[in-house]
Amino acid sequence: MDRMTTAVRAERDFLGTAYVPADALYGIQTVRALGNSGLGTRTLAEEPLLLTALAHTKAACALANGRFAELTPAISEAIVRSAREVAGGAHRAHFPLELVQGGGGTAVNMMVNEVLANRANLILGGELGTYDPVHPNDHVNRSQSTNDVFPTAMAIAAYRALTETVESLRTVASSLDATAARYADLEHLGRTCLQDAVPLPIAAVHGAHAHAVRRAADDVERAARPLLAVPLGGTAVGTGLGAPPGFGESATDMLAAETGLEITPSPNPYDGLASLEPFGRAADALARAARVLGRTAGDLRMLASGPVGGLGEIALPPVQAGSSIMPGKVNPVLPELVMQTQFLLSGIAHTVAAASGTPELEVTPMGPVAVEELLRGTRMLTKAATLFAQRCIDGVEWVPDRVASNLTGSYEQAVRDVADDGYDRIALARHATSHNGRLTKETQP
Amino acid sequence: MDRMTTAVRAERDFLGTAYVPADALYGIQTVRALGNSGLGTRTLAEEPLLLTALAHTKAACALANGRFAELTPAISEAIVRSAREVAGGAHRAHFPLELVQGGGGTAVNMMVNEVLANRANLILGGELGTYDPVHPNDHVNRSQSTNDVFPTAMAIAAYRALTETVESLRTVASSLDATAARYADLEHLGRTCLQDAVPLPIAAVHGAHAHAVRRAADDVERAARPLLAVPLGGTAVGTGLGAPPGFGESATDMLAAETGLEITPSPNPYDGLASLEPFGRAADALARAARVLGRTAGDLRMLASGPVGGLGEIALPPVQAGSSIMPGKVNPVLPELVMQTQFLLSGIAHTVAAASGTPELEVTPMGPVAVEELLRGTRMLTKAATLFAQRCIDGVEWVPDRVASNLTGSYEQAVRDVADDGYDRIALARHATSHNGRLTKETQP
Amino acid sequence: MDRMTTAVRAERDFLGTAYVPADALYGIQTVRALGNSGLGTRTLAEEPLLLTALAHTKAACALANGRFAELTPAISEAIVRSAREVAGGAHRAHFPLELVQGGGGTAVNMMVNEVLANRANLILGGELGTYDPVHPNDHVNRSQSTNDVFPTAMAIAAYRALTETVESLRTVASSLDATAARYADLEHLGRTCLQDAVPLPIAAVHGAHAHAVRRAADDVERAARPLLAVPLGGTAVGTGLGAPPGFGESATDMLAAETGLEITPSPNPYDGLASLEPFGRAADALARAARVLGRTAGDLRMLASGPVGGLGEIALPPVQAGSSIMPGKVNPVLPELVMQTQFLLSGIAHTVAAASGTPELEVTPMGPVAVEELLRGTRMLTKAATLFAQRCIDGVEWVPDRVASNLTGSYEQAVRDVADDGYDRIALARHATSHNGRLTKETQP
Amino acid sequence: MDRMTTAVRAERDFLGTAYVPADALYGIQTVRALGNSGLGTRTLAEEPLLLTALAHTKAACALANGRFAELTPAISEAIVRSAREVAGGAHRAHFPLELVQGGGGTAVNMMVNEVLANRANLILGGELGTYDPVHPNDHVNRSQSTNDVFPTAMAIAAYRALTETVESLRTVASSLDATAARYADLEHLGRTCLQDAVPLPIAAVHGAHAHAVRRAADDVERAARPLLAVPLGGTAVGTGLGAPPGFGESATDMLAAETGLEITPSPNPYDGLASLEPFGRAADALARAARVLGRTAGDLRMLASGPVGGLGEIALPPVQAGSSIMPGKVNPVLPELVMQTQFLLSGIAHTVAAASGTPELEVTPMGPVAVEELLRGTRMLTKAATLFAQRCIDGVEWVPDRVASNLTGSYEQAVRDVADDGYDRIALARHATSHNGRLTKETQP
Repeated sequence: MDRMTTAVRAERDFLGTAYVPADALYGIQTVRALGNSGLGTRTLAEEPLLLTALAHTKAACALANGRFAELTPAISEAIVRSAREVAGGAHRAHFPLELVQGGGGTAVNMMVNEVLANRANLILGGELGTYDPVHPNDHVNRSQSTNDVFPTAMAIAAYRALTETVESLRTVASSLDATAARYADLEHLGRTCLQDAVPLPIAAVHGAHAHAVRRAADDVERAARPLLAVPLGGTAVGTGLGAPPGFGESATDMLAAETGLEITPSPNPYDGLASLEPFGRAADALARAARVLGRTAGDLRMLASGPVGGLGEIALPPVQAGSSIMPGKVNPVLPELVMQTQFLLSGIAHTVAAASGTPELEVTPMGPVAVEELLRGTRMLTKAATLFAQRCIDGVEWVPDRVASNLTGSYEQAVRDVADDGYDRIALARHATSHNGRLTKETQP
Repeated sequence: MDRMTTAVRAERDFLGTAYVPADALYGIQTVRALGNSGLGTRTLAEEPLLLTALAHTKAACALANGRFAELTPAISEAIVRSAREVAGGAHRAHFPLELVQGGGGTAVNMMVNEVLANRANLILGGELGTYDPVHPNDHVNRSQSTNDVFPTAMAIAAYRALTETVESLRTVASSLDATAARYADLEHLGRTCLQDAVPLPIAAVHGAHAHAVRRAADDVERAARPLLAVPLGGTAVGTGLGAPPGFGESATDMLAAETGLEITPSPNPYDGLASLEPFGRAADALARAARVLGRTAGDLRMLASGPVGGLGEIALPPVQAGSSIMPGKVNPVLPELVMQTQFLLSGIAHTVAAASGTPELEVTPMGPVAVEELLRGTRMLTKAATLFAQRCIDGVEWVPDRVASNLTGSYEQAVRDVADDGYDRIALARHATSHNGRLTKETQP
Repeated sequence: MDRMTTAVRAERDFLGTAYVPADALYGIQTVRALGNSGLGTRTLAEEPLLLTALAHTKAACALANGRFAELTPAISEAIVRSAREVAGGAHRAHFPLELVQGGGGTAVNMMVNEVLANRANLILGGELGTYDPVHPNDHVNRSQSTNDVFPTAMAIAAYRALTETVESLRTVASSLDATAARYADLEHLGRTCLQDAVPLPIAAVHGAHAHAVRRAADDVERAARPLLAVPLGGTAVGTGLGAPPGFGESATDMLAAETGLEITPSPNPYDGLASLEPFGRAADALARAARVLGRTAGDLRMLASGPVGGLGEIALPPVQAGSSIMPGKVNPVLPELVMQTQFLLSGIAHTVAAASGTPELEVTPMGPVAVEELLRGTRMLTKAATLFAQRCIDGVEWVPDRVASNLTGSYEQAVRDVADDGYDRIALARHATSHNGRLTKETQP
Repeated sequence: MDRMTTAVRAERDFLGTAYVPADALYGIQTVRALGNSGLGTRTLAEEPLLLTALAHTKAACALANGRFAELTPAISEAIVRSAREVAGGAHRAHFPLELVQGGGGTAVNMMVNEVLANRANLILGGELGTYDPVHPNDHVNRSQSTNDVFPTAMAIAAYRALTETVESLRTVASSLDATAARYADLEHLGRTCLQDAVPLPIAAVHGAHAHAVRRAADDVERAARPLLAVPLGGTAVGTGLGAPPGFGESATDMLAAETGLEITPSPNPYDGLASLEPFGRAADALARAARVLGRTAGDLRMLASGPVGGLGEIALPPVQAGSSIMPGKVNPVLPELVMQTQFLLSGIAHTVAAASGTPELEVTPMGPVAVEELLRGTRMLTKAATLFAQRCIDGVEWVPDRVASNLTGSYEQAVRDVADDGYDRIALARHATSHNGRLTKETQP
């Protein structure tokens, strides 16, 4: 959505004139930035968690500005009302900028300022593009900078997205536990190095996976929490220049109220502006969670290999035809979806890490790519986890015959015999059976 | 787009019944797969290069099947016509599946088979959902498997996308050369370890970047070429089971004609089904190209730092306001867009590498994530390169005063004096000036 | 060290005969494994933390085996004494195997078993290579498997190494704080997007870095702690097969006593054998810590750029000559060492992640590469951090003249003027000064 | 090796005095740098390919300096002789610096200059530490800078190491081909998504792997070739400042003769100093080659899984005991060594990529970490490939009984029946057999 109508209005800034769609709530800065971006990444409209977080932040700041008499009550209220409309889902089409932009979120913040200013002016009886009585920078952005607002909104959006992911991971753990419970009495052949080893309970197999998934979920949750400490009030470089004393605390309180989250001020706002590490930590935790899911999926897929020429110990629920040429074949599509999600999240963590690692002095401009990728990753992982639990794990069925026949490969008796006969003797006997004792000249050290 | 209308039709497969939107060209397999995916990755409809490549492949196979009398002329022609409609841009809304799926592209191939079957039946006077006279598997997919069709289409789509990227990279190189030409006579202070060093021509700065970009473009081009050798005709595992002898060669010839590309048979179709390495190689080449652009962007940004408190040697064209709070500030938004693209492409290469590296025996099911990410990456890099050239490099202006004052830091005279006075004496003299000769006790080894 | 002497002794196992250096404490399995490895990674001898942890584990198990009457007191005591000798640093040359091996640590565990058996036999008056009365598997390895012993020792070694890293990171934070304190009253020009912005205290610059480093250290410490829960007693697949009931708890208690660490049993021993995630988490935390150091180093390097043609605001202590050709030049060698450490740790995290992510059913054989890389990484980061603190940060000196002249680029007054005159007016005025108001036709959207 | 004796000599530079082991050939700069490094990475002494390449470069430059009358014949000859001694393996202990250093190789280059100067002075009857008549900077480093010498030597060392890797990869391909030939007439069950599919020749399995390995080897070889174009003569920033006109060409010719390699001048020396991309490309190619080996190893390991409860189709040669507790068990240690090598190379490529991607203006100081990791990687991959070929692939034996019984899972007949009966009917029939036709309510879309 670049243009809403063919009619345009002219707007001016210090760089000259540009033309804005006549009915757009956004303004000249958005139009300029549209020309300087467009990689195909998600737009703010397509990332409602971030849009909402920005709107909440703007509402909180307008309230604080009202309290500090930086804005008149009328203007403060109009901005708050506009921001709450946006937070409520309105005006979505008026946020066409992609998240990934140079300048560290400035364009996105400017777009939000423009939309809220225009909307507030409409509320107050003004007209689009006049920025009177409400101006994007002088009023909507009052006492703020992109450099404190954008990381604040990034953190809130990421927090919410991560919370959803945690929940979906726990769904997977519950599904695994439930599956374990369904097979409480059965043992299967454990493998080490994919070689036949000794038996263990099937419940332990699923239980170990559940344990790992739950730990990964805890870790994501633990990584999400620090995001609620936000640098709002730091303005351009952390000093609060341009904001009245106490503004940050007040705006942060308002933001907590506006969002219903336990948001607090950054312990070090300078760090809050300069560092993407909390996002990097979250991305790492997501990648590890995806890896745990991927390993779980890979194990299930291997146990389901066959059914004849593989391990064949479990049957996954058949959810779609598996081949366009081999009729009746069924594929482990959910495990493979999860494995691909593992690869995606690993790439995302990589990107966020790279974005976090460049020396940028006081303020990092790499936030946009970090938040875009982090939100993309949470969404993918949340969905993959949910599908995996509901459409795969819940329907896992072990195949008793195959489980039993595979168990004949067990070394259990050999392990027990060692106590009486010694490792060396049993090894010779066992090896003679299974490998015919051959050790070729080539393989002798 | 999950549902086009609320009216549905029932379809059956070996797993039971499912309901399909009454006017959808796709069928039951697509509906099933919609329920088993949905991470938020791009749909086939949103990746026209891949959709077109699949349509071309289906047309080519229908032609070859006609020639081998595997299909009647009427059915062959109806499929070809349907496929060409799709290749021409029609029916886009009927390809709602996301690329990233378990099962290695099977669902996407099935969807294409369904759409073409339904469309061909309409052409032949039949009805939606009857699959009579044209059946998705028996006719559209005749002599094919997902396992040869999907890698073939992946390769063609990737080839085309990479070719666009190569072109945009060369635009950057040309812009750099043109900028070099504009400053043919000026020298600036070279830095090593970011420390003042000795002068070099400004043209050499831009020329070195151009050289690196051009080499990166060549490397992407070189990586794209092998993709034109495709495993079509290998069917399920590379043996051509289910296809008449000679089908692969014939279909590949048809595909070359259909696409206008120099497509040839894979030198080893078994490898063509099992290995994603050619895609991995392309992804690596893209990541390196993005890195070269990112390094170029970073250098320009550093030279443009300031204008007062930085190097201040170049002025980048001001393309949008740079701060919501600091009026008149302008940011290097294009270099920062490019740097973020570097991070994105690096993550993508990582994902494709991970997808390429899992042992999967005869056929890899990880193609979907590889092609989705590769196409995403080419698109982003192509756009970033084009914007960088046009909206940043072309407008670079060096600031002669600052260039001159910085040059006073040069070691040129010191280097020349060594010949007469020896390194040690000059070092002492020079160091006395610039660092006051202090070496604290703590820093002495 | 492959061979200690040219004299050899013959040893036999179920695969045949092999020849062992006559005076080696290790035996046939070590010799076999030497022939199947040798990538050039660190040997167990070169990783004393892991060797000690293995020795402590063997001592603890021998004690527990004694208590459970699985071993006679004499044999138990001889093994304990041998293990404590090794833990004390003796017999180092007898552990020549590299860590990175196939088979998941089996060869390394076998080597330790052999050395302790041979040493115990010597203590008991026996001879090398007879394995009588003490046998590597029947006695030293009693009630154990590589699959529980190796992860246990990995975790202890990693814990100790990580603890050292945490300490060195905190040294960096303290150095930064001390530097901040030395410049409590000075402000410098903050930059955003490397462009002149507004002032902030120099103490805040160092303080933000210190905050980030300390947070990274906390995160490493938090990641280290779970490693103290070990799966000892699980034996081959987590069930404890081959060990007497209660052995795991007892051996874990002994291990806690032997090491002086608060070691406890794994909450889920099955997971403890199958999952490398705790190591992956630690590797991620290390990579992030290295990144924070690297960013700090990069910022210092940029602030030290020049001294003439760069930002020139700080002087780093000169610690070595910086050029073979430019006499008197000095380089930021410590920051650049740290930046390279960042790259190394990032690669290591990547490797550990890859090792953690493969589906391996009950037991992962990828532990060796994970622990080898993790230990390598901690060592590098610990050293880099210490050098950075002592030889760079502690000697940072700000250059007041340059700090002051750079401050003339500040937007502080412009930000203040907005309250009275509005953003638009100030922007126009300011831009006219700094960029001559030019916006070329090409750059207009 | 920090100190050779306790006796020391004092040396002075512009930073003050430092103490050098009395009999060391290196001097003060090496001592200083020892204090500023020590991460535990390889020393120059431990990387003979790089040491030799540096020595050859110094010899070539001394010859060219002689020809240009920059050095007297006596000094030129003494340097050449010293350098050739080093290239021949002498004086190894006098190169104790680790490769990974800040300052971009300066310290390493300085160390080489010092050793050659001291050695040349000894040859000419002088004394250690006097640097008379031969001075490290004024004579050994004449017409050179670290910035052209170090990348030149890096490239030569990398070229040689990569060449060895290519050879070892081709050994793997040959082993695979030979194994294919041993099983020319047998078919086994192909799998797709690890599910039973249709048969293919065993020769095709090994042949596809061989094809992929050979392609990877070609790619490494192709990446190595550009390294032979070196920026020698560019000195500090590429302009050749401090060297006589024509020096670069002459020194490059000498270097070609000295090394026996087809070394040519960089097409763009400025790029040659600033860019690590050719090393990045080589590292990527190595990582892909390791991945192909890892995939091959993983496939063999999976086919060898069991022998009872797995696929069990191949027996790998037993090369060492596989368990400390399960007597007679044998592990796929070589495949697992190779898989870990895959992870290591992937991490190394990551590190080299990170080192290549930082904007560094005229000269990158990140070469040391790039070359250290690249050499480490080649060594590991070369060794892993060789072991894999000789100790695993060459001894692969297929197990005809299991191959035959697994083949009963084939869909071959089903695929053939489609032509007559249609996909839908066969699918229903086949599915009824293998999955009992169950599709639970939960899994229905």
